Amino acid sequence: MHEFSIIDRFFATLMGDDKSVLLDDGAVFTPDRIQQTVIATDTLVADVHFRAQDPAYLIAQKALRTNLSDLAAMGADPFGYLLNISLPSDITESWLASFSSGLAQDQKQYKVKLMGGDTTKTSGPLVISVTVLGTVPPKMALARRKAQSGDRLYVSGTLGDSALGLQFLKGHFATVSQNLKTYFIDRYHLPQPRLSLGQELRNFAHAAIDISDGLLADLEHVCIASGLSAWVQLSALPVSSPLQEMLNRSNDQRKHQLLNFILNGGDDYELVFTASPSESEKIIFLSRKLNIPITLIGHLGFEDIAEDKNRIHLLNEHNQPIGMNFKGYEHTWR
Amino acid sequence: MHEFSIIDRFFATLMGDDKSVLLDDGAVFTPDRIQQTVIATDTLVADVHFRAQDPAYLIAQKALRTNLSDLAAMGADPFGYLLNISLPSDITESWLASFSSGLAQDQKQYKVKLMGGDTTKTSGPLVISVTVLGTVPPKMALARRKAQSGDRLYVSGTLGDSALGLQFLKGHFATVSQNLKTYFIDRYHLPQPRLSLGQELRNFAHAAIDISDGLLADLEHVCIASGLSAWVQLSALPVSSPLQEMLNRSNDQRKHQLLNFILNGGDDYELVFTASPSESEKIIFLSRKLNIPITLIGHLGFEDIAEDKNRIHLLNEHNQPIGMNFKGYEHTWR
Repeated sequence: MHEFSIIDRFFATLMGDDKSVLLDDGAVFTPDRIQQTVIATDTLVADVHFRAQDPAYLIAQKALRTNLSDLAAMGADPFGYLLNISLPSDITESWLASFSSGLAQDQKQYKVKLMGGDTTKTSGPLVISVTVLGTVPPKMALARRKAQSGDRLYVSGTLGDSALGLQFLKGHFATVSQNLKTYFIDRYHLPQPRLSLGQELRNFAHAAIDISDGLLADLEHVCIASGLSAWVQLSALPVSSPLQEMLNRSNDQRKHQLLNFILNGGDDYELVFTASPSESEKIIFLSRKLNIPITLIGHLGFEDIAEDKNRIHLLNEHNQPIGMNFKGYEHTWR
Repeated sequence: MHEFSIIDRFFATLMGDDKSVLLDDGAVFTPDRIQQTVIATDTLVADVHFRAQDPAYLIAQKALRTNLSDLAAMGADPFGYLLNISLPSDITESWLASFSSGLAQDQKQYKVKLMGGDTTKTSGPLVISVTVLGTVPPKMALARRKAQSGDRLYVSGTLGDSALGLQFLKGHFATVSQNLKTYFIDRYHLPQPRLSLGQELRNFAHAAIDISDGLLADLEHVCIASGLSAWVQLSALPVSSPLQEMLNRSNDQRKHQLLNFILNGGDDYELVFTASPSESEKIIFLSRKLNIPITLIGHLGFEDIAEDKNRIHLLNEHNQPIGMNFKGYEHTWR
């Protein structure tokens, strides 16, 4: 299929006919006169960030949602996105139709529209770059470097489910029931960007980041950017009931494996954020209002020894450091 | 190399330390309160849009410049860009250093800065998406659909050189002298986005597009978007002296080949634009002021027969239609 006919048939309808965006070689739009503009971009490569055989509509939604998750971590309101897609030759029309319908559905849910992009061919795996645009009130964006010493550390939702879902898709952990598997696989396929949470947090929280590469890796970005260390209570880390159920039935080796998913598993797209201890009541209220679990998992501060800054300390229930070795994570571990 | 260390070592310096752009999961910036914002994006895939073995700094500059060319076609002033790059495993540190230095050089020349992006791995060919941001005064953006019946049709620079340069790189046309080859190959490697021209044209021209896919293919976009047909004088099409020299020494078959590059060769990144006949003196003045050749190549208008609209008519020196068959062009013809 010719590039232009792909755009006409599968992507043009996603742009709507809103004349406030003039589309040509690019989009022209009038920025909000009061807000700041936020832009974020993520690339997803087949068999690195998703499985090539995943349903096309889920790949599309994952590509959009991982980007919306970046905006959530900044406390921004998304309004549009660009789509760059490099297609292998075996992509079919029905694949493209499914991909496009996935985007159409999410455009409604997240109130964004396609504002441009580029469609190319590639001899390699499918590559998708999405660039999202949003707004945030002046100086209100949450940022990694805004974390302060003494801040409490929170995480939304639960950790480790997505990484476990991917294991199931790969045929590991075969003894687990199908129902349980479906729960984890759904979490892997479809991140829920925490936009409403981010938009509330920008009013009082300091730093936030979304967990795309695993709790420890992403928290480390906050530590480095803010020049602080983090102390994280291992037993406080929130896990879903299905994962807790698995933990209960696991031997020590399996437990260690699961804990690794909790600490280093990517694709959770929950928010880790920091706020002053004086805001703790507000956070409890927010959790109830948005119906999103929010868990206190530790705090941030300066190290005693200056050379040893920007570290993450895992603590047991007696606040003693745990000597466990949990390596950071790269998407390509899959 | 780990994704994060690639960013730190080769891309972080391109962002500078301008605190007006807060970088995290994305960039936050205060948009110009008067201007409109322009955003455009292009993806380049190795061995489709450039040759994998081309020098890394030239690949980087081509990726940035093809995008700047889109902004030129809208009459915009660029201010920043995002870089999404998917790297094959055989990419070396010296390749990355060269790539980064190419960008650094062009950032100075075009007064843009890196505002974000994403670095990933791929098992396939190198894929680069650049997204450029710019500004344009309200309602002043040039657009394909703004062409009007009776408009004159102009093109900047010369046509066909880049397509010919690629032929030389592929080892074709072996009889041509090395000096001549170098001229054409340089044109293929390094587009010159016509930013200053676009910024002047926005004040009085109607439609513009940059020639990335070939004159006929790109002019067709203007015709379709504006509902008009184009009449193009074949003998008026501007060619460089090196290409003219080759034409003079060619037999009919070779001439036809070269004409095909002039009409359908991509990667020229010249501007085709339309303006009212009353602006012709202004255009002559502009060409001198900017020291950019601008050539009148035809005009736009309505078809006599309504069903036959949006066509491009090639005319000989007696204004008679030429029956030649010149097919449109896709990047993958290479």
